[in-house]
Amino acid sequence: MEVVKEITKMKKISKIWKKEGYKISFVPTMGFLHEAHLSLIRKAKELGDKTVVSIFVNPLQFGPKEDFKEYPRDLERDLALLEKEEVDVVFVPKTEEMYPSDFQTYVEVTKLTTGLCGAFRPGHFKGVTTVVLKLFNIINPDIAIFGEKDYQQLQVVRQMVKDLNLDIEIIAHPTVREKDGLAMSSRNIYLSSEERESASTLYKALLLAQELIKDGERNSQNLKKKLEDFIHSFPFTKVQYIEFVDPLTLEPVEKIEKPVVCALAVFVGKARLIDNMLINPE
Amino acid sequence: MEVVKEITKMKKISKIWKKEGYKISFVPTMGFLHEAHLSLIRKAKELGDKTVVSIFVNPLQFGPKEDFKEYPRDLERDLALLEKEEVDVVFVPKTEEMYPSDFQTYVEVTKLTTGLCGAFRPGHFKGVTTVVLKLFNIINPDIAIFGEKDYQQLQVVRQMVKDLNLDIEIIAHPTVREKDGLAMSSRNIYLSSEERESASTLYKALLLAQELIKDGERNSQNLKKKLEDFIHSFPFTKVQYIEFVDPLTLEPVEKIEKPVVCALAVFVGKARLIDNMLINPE
Repeated sequence: MEVVKEITKMKKISKIWKKEGYKISFVPTMGFLHEAHLSLIRKAKELGDKTVVSIFVNPLQFGPKEDFKEYPRDLERDLALLEKEEVDVVFVPKTEEMYPSDFQTYVEVTKLTTGLCGAFRPGHFKGVTTVVLKLFNIINPDIAIFGEKDYQQLQVVRQMVKDLNLDIEIIAHPTVREKDGLAMSSRNIYLSSEERESASTLYKALLLAQELIKDGERNSQNLKKKLEDFIHSFPFTKVQYIEFVDPLTLEPVEKIEKPVVCALAVFVGKARLIDNMLINPE
Repeated sequence: MEVVKEITKMKKISKIWKKEGYKISFVPTMGFLHEAHLSLIRKAKELGDKTVVSIFVNPLQFGPKEDFKEYPRDLERDLALLEKEEVDVVFVPKTEEMYPSDFQTYVEVTKLTTGLCGAFRPGHFKGVTTVVLKLFNIINPDIAIFGEKDYQQLQVVRQMVKDLNLDIEIIAHPTVREKDGLAMSSRNIYLSSEERESASTLYKALLLAQELIKDGERNSQNLKKKLEDFIHSFPFTKVQYIEFVDPLTLEPVEKIEKPVVCALAVFVGKARLIDNMLINPE
């Protein structure tokens, strides 16, 4: 496993691989790896000949009041985990090289980023698409793997790839959960043990939504109310949003007649957690 | 010479060329080709093994009150000219394929686009960088040639290439002029024969700036005033801007002590013409 810090070196490696006809698969991460990352990486290894994992806590996707500074980091532990997975290259670029002082080019997907997390995190997805496009251009992958936990991000990246005519296959990987259903996330480390108990409410709320819909509830306003009450019955919780959206356009759905994605963001203590589920009313 | 209309077909051709190790050079145009385009294309042929010229009047870079509809088009004549130049591929994409109805991804260079034409054409450079990035991704060139007449565009594209980590060499080609100095432009066709006589004032004003600076004038406000008066002494002219800017940052220069670019935009009748010159005070 090679750890690469320089953009030019990463490009050189990719160029050689391409010339030799290898299929490059890529998993972008912000590090502090957990089991869900590793399952994305195993998928990547399965689908490609050469696997690149990037570790970069991208300042551009954090708002001024968000947790960029606190975001957990542990490069040594990450590299040990990646070594075990037999990743070919770990790309760990420096912030100053990714964003030199005269940096001024941004990529933005518009419609898909107006709702859900986009409504509460202005600039977040612009930061995501900008860094993802840079990483794509540096690594030149054939395949990139994204987790379904960040469902809006997944759709936004897919739209960017389509709109900008990139030749990269975007693979979605199912959300990996703890035993009690909590979606794995590096931010779960922010939870105290008491908060941790409440954190599984996101998944339980999604299961409740599924059940209510199966039982015939079709009105998303009613569903939202029930889910919110359910979540707030757990201590330390504060719902940011609960939405039922079209799986492709991410537009809100009032009356549920086709498969919808139920997506939610909930503060549990200071940790902002998100989760989602595709629910089919049939 | 092959005329390609489909994005997938263009990609396929480029992929084959790349595999065979050819160096692809690319000249993006909006068609209605003139001698300046042809000189860019000859440069492209000289620098690369395979040459692609695109013809696409990009709606995204025209403002709602600008001349998208009137912009001159003559594909048949263009193709005949390109055939003579022995271009390998002419890429003529359809608007509906470049911008399908759900298109929503935009690329923006910020600082460099605030002044000069960017100040008077909101959204113009966003349209330029978006289409140029799409064309780059479709054609995958090693080299792309841009004319110096559109100096701000040239710098904006260079910045995008650098910021997004693209592996494309951007080549600047000197402005090609008519006998009286008028910079060649497809928009010159808008000029009546009387207006045409006034149109050379842009170049004459640049020569005047050069002369005044050589003679010791260092204050750009004084220079602007003199140039504006000079231009307005010709009938049908209306100055939009005259600026002295740093050649790299495009920031306005008050006191001219290093090489500057003098850039101007002038309406001659309904035609909006631009021109520029690098002037060294030494």
